[in-house]
Amino acid sequence: MRTAIIGLGLIGGSIAIDLRKAGLATALVGVEKNPGHASRALKLGLVDTLSELEEAVAQSDLVITAIPVNAIKSVVTTVLDHISPGAVVIDTGSTKSMICKAIENHPRREQFVAAHPLAGTENSGPDAAFAGLFTMKTNIICEREKSSKQALNVAAEIFSALQMRTIFMDPVEHDKHVAYVSHLSHVSAFLLGQTVLDIEKDEKNIFNLAGSGFASTVRLAKSSPDMWAPIFEQNAEYLSQALLEYIMHLQKFQYHLMKRDVKELHRIMTDANHIRKVLEGLDIKQKPNQLVENKT
Amino acid sequence: MRTAIIGLGLIGGSIAIDLRKAGLATALVGVEKNPGHASRALKLGLVDTLSELEEAVAQSDLVITAIPVNAIKSVVTTVLDHISPGAVVIDTGSTKSMICKAIENHPRREQFVAAHPLAGTENSGPDAAFAGLFTMKTNIICEREKSSKQALNVAAEIFSALQMRTIFMDPVEHDKHVAYVSHLSHVSAFLLGQTVLDIEKDEKNIFNLAGSGFASTVRLAKSSPDMWAPIFEQNAEYLSQALLEYIMHLQKFQYHLMKRDVKELHRIMTDANHIRKVLEGLDIKQKPNQLVENKT
Repeated sequence: MRTAIIGLGLIGGSIAIDLRKAGLATALVGVEKNPGHASRALKLGLVDTLSELEEAVAQSDLVITAIPVNAIKSVVTTVLDHISPGAVVIDTGSTKSMICKAIENHPRREQFVAAHPLAGTENSGPDAAFAGLFTMKTNIICEREKSSKQALNVAAEIFSALQMRTIFMDPVEHDKHVAYVSHLSHVSAFLLGQTVLDIEKDEKNIFNLAGSGFASTVRLAKSSPDMWAPIFEQNAEYLSQALLEYIMHLQKFQYHLMKRDVKELHRIMTDANHIRKVLEGLDIKQKPNQLVENKT
Repeated sequence: MRTAIIGLGLIGGSIAIDLRKAGLATALVGVEKNPGHASRALKLGLVDTLSELEEAVAQSDLVITAIPVNAIKSVVTTVLDHISPGAVVIDTGSTKSMICKAIENHPRREQFVAAHPLAGTENSGPDAAFAGLFTMKTNIICEREKSSKQALNVAAEIFSALQMRTIFMDPVEHDKHVAYVSHLSHVSAFLLGQTVLDIEKDEKNIFNLAGSGFASTVRLAKSSPDMWAPIFEQNAEYLSQALLEYIMHLQKFQYHLMKRDVKELHRIMTDANHIRKVLEGLDIKQKPNQLVENKT
């Protein structure tokens, strides 16, 4: 398939690498607003050529958008306005309600697949892209009933090539669950980083004292604000709920801490230990290419 | 040196492995209250024999305590009461004010070294022990002026063999800094785990949606409540301060989120990105065996 990748960062770049490797994508054309990223992506061989959006779309069988979520509405609308009959556009953004709503009445809605491949690192830009980023991870497709069979088939082929397992969800359910499982982790890491930076102003003591536990917990604080600020804005309602619940748990813990109620602290931690089972499930259960229906 | 290891968990067990490998520890005797852990440690070859505390101490040149911090005061006092002249006891607990205060007037205080090797994983017990746990990590020694030259020399030999870099700190400063850099990370992970478990009651959606970012941020929520509840209790004042600051940052973020103040959210994340420099410093700067004075 002649393929256009809109947005040549970590996600778009990594998809380009894997689809080319799988022999699925040919004549890879990239669209990238940041000139530095554009030329870097070309140099790295992520795409064969660079082009303007309309032109890239007109000449492609497959268009993948991998851009900050605040740009998706305008870009996907333009893509659908210019796409050939029979071509497919797949979005990969981290929020899904807004885009599904924005294009619900577009005459070419069925050529669109609303996806969210759940993968990433704390790094961004074309240099962060790598082969296998998506292997064994989960992909979510929203409003499957609004995409054509052919579009879903193309998407299945793509996410199979990326070795992902696809599940189906309602876009609002999607946004609610990722608020807890993905977006909240990012906020907690950003602000843990901020709290420690604040107190350890000269940073020398962090160099000295921080161990691998701190590094792991705070890793996501390295993530790109350009990417995450729009995600948080779009998912503000659910993320805010999640944050308030998190804050409530922290406040309760602090209360028991000040009371030196060790028994209760122990009980809370023992409950939280339950996450071990969940995390082990993550390692074991994520088999690729299962197309399972998710009941939420 | 004939060596007694008191507490045969992750820390005690890993020290035993590395000291034996380095040829420093001979006739390794273990003291362990948990009978299951004791026999497992023997089976794994972490120690050569098991013994009662007083007996183990009386026959050793080196005693290392690696036990929950609420047991340290009583155990280290007993150790000092029974230790041979010229023998050395090194504690490895995660809080240092309490133990330094508890034994400040012990007639054998100078045979004691108050250390905190900053290393660990979310796993516990003898089966969690492994060679190289401490390699390239930081060790802290408190109240160095209260240990004899000979005791400090033995400690330097031990932590060199573990390939650690040692710095010196006041015990109160130590407790304050680890509240931010280690203990707060654990609390934030425990309660992030709790928050997500709460909302995702059936756990199915966590299996489906949680990615590597969540796994990394929440990893420490798997840690042992038996170990951490006493640490939190002993460091309640500083940890509570750290928690209140963390909560304040989260509340501010939630406020800007509800106001859809994307610019301010972006600014906060950009500030927090600064942690990247610190974390890269962790990789680069932790060279072993430097004995540097830490000015706090």
